[in-house]
Amino acid sequence: MTPFPQTPLAPRLRLLTPLLAAAVLAAPATGRGDEGMWLFSSPPVEVLKSRHGFAPDQTWFDHVQRASVRVMSGGSGSFVSADGLLMSNHHVASDAIQKLSTADRDLLRDGFHARTLAEELPCKDLELNVLIDIEDVTARVNAAVPAGLPADQAAAARRAVQAEIEKQAADRSGYRCDVVTLFQGGAYHLYRYKQYTDVRLVFAPEQQIAFFGGDPDNFEYPRFCLDVAFLRAYEDGRPARVDHFLKWSRRGVSEGDLVLVSGHPGRTSRLLTLTELEYLRDHAYPAALERLYREEVSLSAWSARSTENQRRAKDDLFSIQNSRKARVGGLAGLQDPAFLGRIAEAEKTFRARLETAPEWASARQAYDRIATSQSVIQQNAERYRMLENAWGLRGELFSLARTLLRSAAERGLPNGDRLREFRDSNRTSLELDLFSSRPIHEDLEILHLADSLTHLTSTLGATDPVVARVLAGKSPRQRAAELVAGTRLRDVAVRKSLYALDLAALRAAADPMIEVAAAVDAEARAVRKTMEAQDETKRQAHAEIARARFALQGSGNYPDATSTLRLAFGLVQGYADSGTTAPAFTEFAGLYQRAQAQNQQPPFDLPERWSKRRGKLDLRTPFNFVSTADIIGGNSGSPTVDRHGEVVGLIFDGNLPSLVLDFAYDDQQARALSVDSRAILEALEKVYGAKNLVQELTSGQVNRR
Amino acid sequence: MTPFPQTPLAPRLRLLTPLLAAAVLAAPATGRGDEGMWLFSSPPVEVLKSRHGFAPDQTWFDHVQRASVRVMSGGSGSFVSADGLLMSNHHVASDAIQKLSTADRDLLRDGFHARTLAEELPCKDLELNVLIDIEDVTARVNAAVPAGLPADQAAAARRAVQAEIEKQAADRSGYRCDVVTLFQGGAYHLYRYKQYTDVRLVFAPEQQIAFFGGDPDNFEYPRFCLDVAFLRAYEDGRPARVDHFLKWSRRGVSEGDLVLVSGHPGRTSRLLTLTELEYLRDHAYPAALERLYREEVSLSAWSARSTENQRRAKDDLFSIQNSRKARVGGLAGLQDPAFLGRIAEAEKTFRARLETAPEWASARQAYDRIATSQSVIQQNAERYRMLENAWGLRGELFSLARTLLRSAAERGLPNGDRLREFRDSNRTSLELDLFSSRPIHEDLEILHLADSLTHLTSTLGATDPVVARVLAGKSPRQRAAELVAGTRLRDVAVRKSLYALDLAALRAAADPMIEVAAAVDAEARAVRKTMEAQDETKRQAHAEIARARFALQGSGNYPDATSTLRLAFGLVQGYADSGTTAPAFTEFAGLYQRAQAQNQQPPFDLPERWSKRRGKLDLRTPFNFVSTADIIGGNSGSPTVDRHGEVVGLIFDGNLPSLVLDFAYDDQQARALSVDSRAILEALEKVYGAKNLVQELTSGQVNRR
Repeated sequence: MTPFPQTPLAPRLRLLTPLLAAAVLAAPATGRGDEGMWLFSSPPVEVLKSRHGFAPDQTWFDHVQRASVRVMSGGSGSFVSADGLLMSNHHVASDAIQKLSTADRDLLRDGFHARTLAEELPCKDLELNVLIDIEDVTARVNAAVPAGLPADQAAAARRAVQAEIEKQAADRSGYRCDVVTLFQGGAYHLYRYKQYTDVRLVFAPEQQIAFFGGDPDNFEYPRFCLDVAFLRAYEDGRPARVDHFLKWSRRGVSEGDLVLVSGHPGRTSRLLTLTELEYLRDHAYPAALERLYREEVSLSAWSARSTENQRRAKDDLFSIQNSRKARVGGLAGLQDPAFLGRIAEAEKTFRARLETAPEWASARQAYDRIATSQSVIQQNAERYRMLENAWGLRGELFSLARTLLRSAAERGLPNGDRLREFRDSNRTSLELDLFSSRPIHEDLEILHLADSLTHLTSTLGATDPVVARVLAGKSPRQRAAELVAGTRLRDVAVRKSLYALDLAALRAAADPMIEVAAAVDAEARAVRKTMEAQDETKRQAHAEIARARFALQGSGNYPDATSTLRLAFGLVQGYADSGTTAPAFTEFAGLYQRAQAQNQQPPFDLPERWSKRRGKLDLRTPFNFVSTADIIGGNSGSPTVDRHGEVVGLIFDGNLPSLVLDFAYDDQQARALSVDSRAILEALEKVYGAKNLVQELTSGQVNRR
Repeated sequence: MTPFPQTPLAPRLRLLTPLLAAAVLAAPATGRGDEGMWLFSSPPVEVLKSRHGFAPDQTWFDHVQRASVRVMSGGSGSFVSADGLLMSNHHVASDAIQKLSTADRDLLRDGFHARTLAEELPCKDLELNVLIDIEDVTARVNAAVPAGLPADQAAAARRAVQAEIEKQAADRSGYRCDVVTLFQGGAYHLYRYKQYTDVRLVFAPEQQIAFFGGDPDNFEYPRFCLDVAFLRAYEDGRPARVDHFLKWSRRGVSEGDLVLVSGHPGRTSRLLTLTELEYLRDHAYPAALERLYREEVSLSAWSARSTENQRRAKDDLFSIQNSRKARVGGLAGLQDPAFLGRIAEAEKTFRARLETAPEWASARQAYDRIATSQSVIQQNAERYRMLENAWGLRGELFSLARTLLRSAAERGLPNGDRLREFRDSNRTSLELDLFSSRPIHEDLEILHLADSLTHLTSTLGATDPVVARVLAGKSPRQRAAELVAGTRLRDVAVRKSLYALDLAALRAAADPMIEVAAAVDAEARAVRKTMEAQDETKRQAHAEIARARFALQGSGNYPDATSTLRLAFGLVQGYADSGTTAPAFTEFAGLYQRAQAQNQQPPFDLPERWSKRRGKLDLRTPFNFVSTADIIGGNSGSPTVDRHGEVVGLIFDGNLPSLVLDFAYDDQQARALSVDSRAILEALEKVYGAKNLVQELTSGQVNRR
């Protein structure tokens, strides 16, 4: 796969999943300490037993799996009552909260609390997935791709068989079915999910306490964040009844205790070859950062012009800042010769082992094939990012226009021949997004489009034919303003009627934004095809390496993260940092101290409720804590549970040293950050007077009174 | 010349001069409306008379010239009393104000007012220049550069003769003497300046009112900024007695009145060839913006971590934001096919005229020579920016280290063979900077250096030999921390003692920052030499074009801006903007309205004094006004005078449409913004109780009581 998700949307939110990204990598040779993002179909039974004397039975794993939830806007969550109450992070729910906010009712700033079911607010386009089961389909997938096929045909064949497997499974089960590539092509698993598309907002604190310290404190520790939100899954207009939900621990955890994390890590790159990592270091990360810097400045400047601009831009701005900080940390690791040197050394050692027997000749050569593919990827990456990933054509409206255009074009093709986002398996998700009534702000759309057209023009050159077609003789600003003013796609009803048309009728409707999508489509598809062929070549090469690795080092390890459910574990543990010790836990008291030390200047100002109700709180309540669990972006909102499978915390961030976990696990300083379950209860009760929620969390069901 | 100044410092401040930039361009064919940045040695006598019925005599020009001041940190100013009182912008003085501030005494935030001469604060390293006279030395310069010399030798010969002229003139006069390239090499003029290096801070308002509206309102209009500061030039420890100063107008101006602006526009690019403009559009501007985006994000994020960080970063951050906004506006013009098309059309027409006679063959070919040079420049630009312009090695400490290293190396060479910043003519300025006791913050130095080393590594590649030498096996962050911790250059005494050493002794001192400067020096010098040879080729080619232009269109026009004194003029005049009319004047009342409309949220919050003393102010006082005068970055702080040469305003900004004035004059919407002289007096008296200043401004001399 290409190293970045193919979705045209910007990476969203702290520790979030690039949901359309797929498996990238091979498995690490050996676990280190509490390393690992384990498959629920192959849990770390041995390690848990030997390291921690913990031997859960299959029921334990099944229960935790089915109580875990993938939040499709990016992130994780868990059911915490039999009535479909879902716990996640505020920053995972913030996209939905933003879409429910207006100039007059700023839920992101002020928070929200439904005291009854009737008050719960339907989200505009939020989807939840619960993993039902996993089936190994490796043999069937590989059988459909004969050896020796050219890469583009092999990619097509593999896509076709995956689509067929998904479609058959979905028709049989009624579930959402995805074939997931694991171990870089070493394995293919079919994941069956129950989908929920009616999701309602139950509770959110003020963003100011959820994200206390803002960008400056993001990825830092000690921290003081109540980064929690509660949502509820509905079915047929009623709260969903769920068989598996996590109980709320009455005791919480102490330093040294074992904790387990069940969530959806998005992507890791732990066994990319050195060539691939160098590409990330020298090309992909710098390009991503260049874009993020540009977007952050553009949006910050616009945001500062008025309080309403600030409200509109806030959630996006935090997402961008979060991605930027994560990338800066990742690039720092890649540019550290010592860090990359250790990875290089491991590769060298393994490749030397491959020299010892002739049966590994093909695995040895695989490294060269990857290097060759990588250089083709590098040559095409800029156009791919600009046109297919739409870095040069940003905004909701362009994204909707492309979806409509391609949907009309792909609909007529056999399911297996379509671009994967138009497969039947994704239709529910696609329509949820396409017909969402979320607000689309014209001014913000013009900002994004003008800025990205400027970027497009600078990158591909003002005289590039595709740029000329897009700009149509106008400047980027003029063109953006004219396209946004001219398109009718802000209107959901218009989108519905256009979606019903075939391609010829759609083009005849001549919406200018759709016409721009059409103007770049051939070239965007062509470069995507080139990239996907290289991905297939690399997939086959990595599969050879994985096979050798399984044979030489055993196959009982975990694959790189793929936005699918994984189990991590570790100890609650502080760490040494610049001559001091970062404690395992923070307390409410520390929140007030930090706010005071910063003179309550934003982003260190306390919400009014927190200032007023300080006296009611037990200031010794544990607030946030750190553990050695192996997490990454996408794990946000994962429940942190104890040996009983009870909620003791809520993952919401990693610390700065954890930013290199993309490439290698570390337990010296890298830590996962959780909100303590005791802080959540204390705040719900004392700060928010949310008795109904406290009751539901502690009893496991909604109080219907 | 290369399109960017060769100084390693970031572009500083709103509308400021890149001081080491030199002449770039040829003269416009014809003036349009109130177009023109006129030489005082060739003032627009005809145009003033025919358009405005204004016929000042030579005394008028001499008086205004000698009352005008170049502020060497970047910007303009004017004497406004016989006792050396200087008026400029707050944002021109802010660099000096920042250097005088500490954690306990934040003059940038709180403002400053010396009620007596004794209270005036000596600036750390501020230099003022007053233009005494101009001498045409074209014949002597050209005679020293024989035709047919290879470009690098021609560049050396030209450098040598310029240095010789400057040295002889300086020895004879005691003045600072600079040879300035005008009309792209069509003319060379010797400028003699009186230098002042003892400059003291007299008055500054709070930055909040000087820069009300901050980055969001920067380059916008209507505006409400008291962007003024007063300094005083000293000689021999006493206020300098100056023969020429501008009187304060009692009446001010009205809409439709003629105003004149005397200041130091930094650089325009009005007759670059199309090839050169395309290079700016496709390479130079995007690269500059990429750097500015990066720096803005990095510094904003750091700034947000604490109030002291915010204080330390504030002035730099505003500079970066200002440059960013200016570049975005400039690039928007270059990427506008209609705007660039008009320039292209003019070039085409002129080149067609050159076809009409054989004597212009050489001018015709000059366009191709420029194109060839431009492609060599493009190939070398990245390394040039990273290494010689030190984009990859930012920070005060690196800059000081390079100055020490090169100074030791250049000192032994004949004056004419040295890099130009080490010529005798620049020694006073260089030592003022080198031995300045301005604060240098270690944490900020590490931030800048780590960030720029990351940029260097991403740009030139981690395996580039010069990058490897700089990083010495460390990561950018580790290396930056170790260099800043290891160098002793923060100490002025250390710098003084190292400056006294010869090169061998300096290297033996083994300061790690100087060693890094040495590690890149050979390559940085080599790429500079390559670029300077191309500059010489282009200079000769542009001289051919200029000769043809003088012959065909007359020589009575103005050259592109070169950071030297120019006279502009225009009418006080509002303009149509998006269906409304932007008024010629704003008033104090509008300030309070705007603050209220924005809920007094920063950057729209009023300083306490302004809230408290609102009742004392005449709210109908004109605050800011716009005129059609032709200004550009560097004009900040220029006096706006009436026909009597009396101060009616103070240039502080241009509006957004003026951001393309780099490339072409416009009077439809582009406007120069001035603070009204009446607002300055009213605020000094009613808000600040600065009776001493009001008395000095109105009487023309300090009250010694």
